[in-house]
Amino acid sequence: MELKNELCTVLEQIKEKTPLVHHITNYVTVNDCANITLAIGGSPVMADDHKEVEDMVSIASAVVLNIGTLNERTIESFVLAGKKANELNIPVILDPVGAGATAFRSQTIEKILKEVKLSVLRGNMSEIKNIYGTGTQTKGVDSVDSSLDGGKEIAISLAKKLSCTVVITGEVDIVSDGNKTYAIQNGHKALSSITGTGCMSASLIGACCGTGKGILQGAILGTMIMGIAGEKANERLKVHEGLGSFKVYLMDAVSNFDQDDIRKRGKVDEI
Amino acid sequence: MELKNELCTVLEQIKEKTPLVHHITNYVTVNDCANITLAIGGSPVMADDHKEVEDMVSIASAVVLNIGTLNERTIESFVLAGKKANELNIPVILDPVGAGATAFRSQTIEKILKEVKLSVLRGNMSEIKNIYGTGTQTKGVDSVDSSLDGGKEIAISLAKKLSCTVVITGEVDIVSDGNKTYAIQNGHKALSSITGTGCMSASLIGACCGTGKGILQGAILGTMIMGIAGEKANERLKVHEGLGSFKVYLMDAVSNFDQDDIRKRGKVDEI
Amino acid sequence: MELKNELCTVLEQIKEKTPLVHHITNYVTVNDCANITLAIGGSPVMADDHKEVEDMVSIASAVVLNIGTLNERTIESFVLAGKKANELNIPVILDPVGAGATAFRSQTIEKILKEVKLSVLRGNMSEIKNIYGTGTQTKGVDSVDSSLDGGKEIAISLAKKLSCTVVITGEVDIVSDGNKTYAIQNGHKALSSITGTGCMSASLIGACCGTGKGILQGAILGTMIMGIAGEKANERLKVHEGLGSFKVYLMDAVSNFDQDDIRKRGKVDEI
Repeated sequence: MELKNELCTVLEQIKEKTPLVHHITNYVTVNDCANITLAIGGSPVMADDHKEVEDMVSIASAVVLNIGTLNERTIESFVLAGKKANELNIPVILDPVGAGATAFRSQTIEKILKEVKLSVLRGNMSEIKNIYGTGTQTKGVDSVDSSLDGGKEIAISLAKKLSCTVVITGEVDIVSDGNKTYAIQNGHKALSSITGTGCMSASLIGACCGTGKGILQGAILGTMIMGIAGEKANERLKVHEGLGSFKVYLMDAVSNFDQDDIRKRGKVDEI
Repeated sequence: MELKNELCTVLEQIKEKTPLVHHITNYVTVNDCANITLAIGGSPVMADDHKEVEDMVSIASAVVLNIGTLNERTIESFVLAGKKANELNIPVILDPVGAGATAFRSQTIEKILKEVKLSVLRGNMSEIKNIYGTGTQTKGVDSVDSSLDGGKEIAISLAKKLSCTVVITGEVDIVSDGNKTYAIQNGHKALSSITGTGCMSASLIGACCGTGKGILQGAILGTMIMGIAGEKANERLKVHEGLGSFKVYLMDAVSNFDQDDIRKRGKVDEI
Repeated sequence: MELKNELCTVLEQIKEKTPLVHHITNYVTVNDCANITLAIGGSPVMADDHKEVEDMVSIASAVVLNIGTLNERTIESFVLAGKKANELNIPVILDPVGAGATAFRSQTIEKILKEVKLSVLRGNMSEIKNIYGTGTQTKGVDSVDSSLDGGKEIAISLAKKLSCTVVITGEVDIVSDGNKTYAIQNGHKALSSITGTGCMSASLIGACCGTGKGILQGAILGTMIMGIAGEKANERLKVHEGLGSFKVYLMDAVSNFDQDDIRKRGKVDEI
């Protein structure tokens, strides 16, 4: 119950402070990221040119870096924005979209991890495993167990290694700061049938962490909001409706998300 | 009533002429801008490379420049497109997104204002104030009154200074060509809870001005359409619905917008 | 009936194989392209940097090149990705958005056609005519008949010339591999009132062709899905609804598309 009280405080603080979440993100899901930030009560700004990202970070409450459609121009901006955020003690959330799919992505993630201190790293199991494997050359990626226990182990060691909170999203979401680890059992499978639910989770985490009420709490709440909104969206779906309606209902659910959702629907347990 | 007749003519002409609105705009709200241009009866085209913007302008009826996610590549294109439009007497609408947030934005706006003659400048109060302050160094930004009277004063002097129509959107929208000034009292607060309503207003103004039936009239109608569509979207909203549904209903309302909406719902007065 | 059986097999294989469709596409409709790929059962990936497109192609089942918002950076990537796909025998679908609107677009298309072997070329009549005219300098564009017969003639000769399948979308869609030619009479006029239905058709064709069950069949099915989904979306539309709802219903219809739709609604005939 104590954790849920803390999560309620974070939610309250979003509504009160309207944290500005600066995104350097991909052009596929950027509109959804902006709208979900607004829907939860934050304020989004998207700016990626190296000539202005530091200025923009300076007025932000959180910075979300998403490498979904990375290019050389934005890589420079990722690093500039991340370093400025570190300097100003503003939380940085990294979404390593497609980690491992190409060498270019792996190199970019390595560069960011080397130059920027993260508050939250959020990815799916395959992305997080890839980063975990990259960092520990003695342990091949394939040897890692993909069960809940395997995920827990990876989340904890990666969190310790990077001194940040790690979020692995999947059927069960795992959140760990290296010290405490939680499993969140909200969500619905349709969330993986629309694009951008991962990116949007990172935006929600950005808004939550931007309140200054705890990085671990922010990572848990941002992840939980997406899961519960997915459940509520699915419950509203009529038989002839499909993924178009699901996405609309998802955004509805986030904009109506309240403390009752946390208390009555939230399924979070320390593991 | 005379003004409303003129606005009805503009609307009619959009449906008849399907004006091509060339956008150089941000990647956050660009899909919404394209869809709203279609919804009102125009035809959108988005092209931002310096090698083709002049060709594209040559076949367009209006040009919308939006600096939401500006970068060095697009800045060059803003200027090339704007100059070409001036040469061909095609109206140019500028949406100075985030003016004042970074030095890079202020410099870009200054560059555009120096090299391109605008037909319409559309922004929120904070953006317009920033431009107003930038241009008149003897008057600090903070000293400007943010009331309706203050907005009117700013709109008039900026319109005179830039020889264009200025639109300040907010709870009450103000439109001035320096000679005549109007207040539009349509709209709903939810419009500020989804991303892109400002950008979409600029697209609507582009479609309206692209008819050749008056810049001031086009600026008023484009602004009014967004306000009335916001009202109608809100009226359809059921209790369990939220911002996802609101956005769908907003687009519905624009695509169903007709002369009756202007006559029965339009709240525009000379001030 | 034999063709419809083949189309049913393609659909079944999409659900079974979840083909990865790599897009290098415009930033206007990219979100819709990703979502429609997911809705039909494929998996979308968008990556456009020259440093990673070849790696991404290597793990893809189909490549969609869309020049909607082309620039020098992406042109290089179009060619690199296309060549790599040719090397690996992965189908390449080209959507020549706005062909003929600017010299830059014509040159880019010429470059792609010279360096990349296409599986499918998909455009509207004006785009395809422009490419047809470009390639056969002795025949001016204007002299081409725009009737169904005219379209058939163009589709056949262009398909032969490029050794690929050509899709001309319009009120009646025409699909030809140079040997066999089909007319598809599904669709609804509202499809041309929202942005991206052409781009989304190319994505659907990508998912279909990515199954390895025939390029001609894939081109027909991808085109037919969009047409039937448009019909079903329109049938659900209530009187006070408009283009916002239409787009939601369109995505719903694609996500619910099944073999019954092919068998009962599909209107495809060899011509």
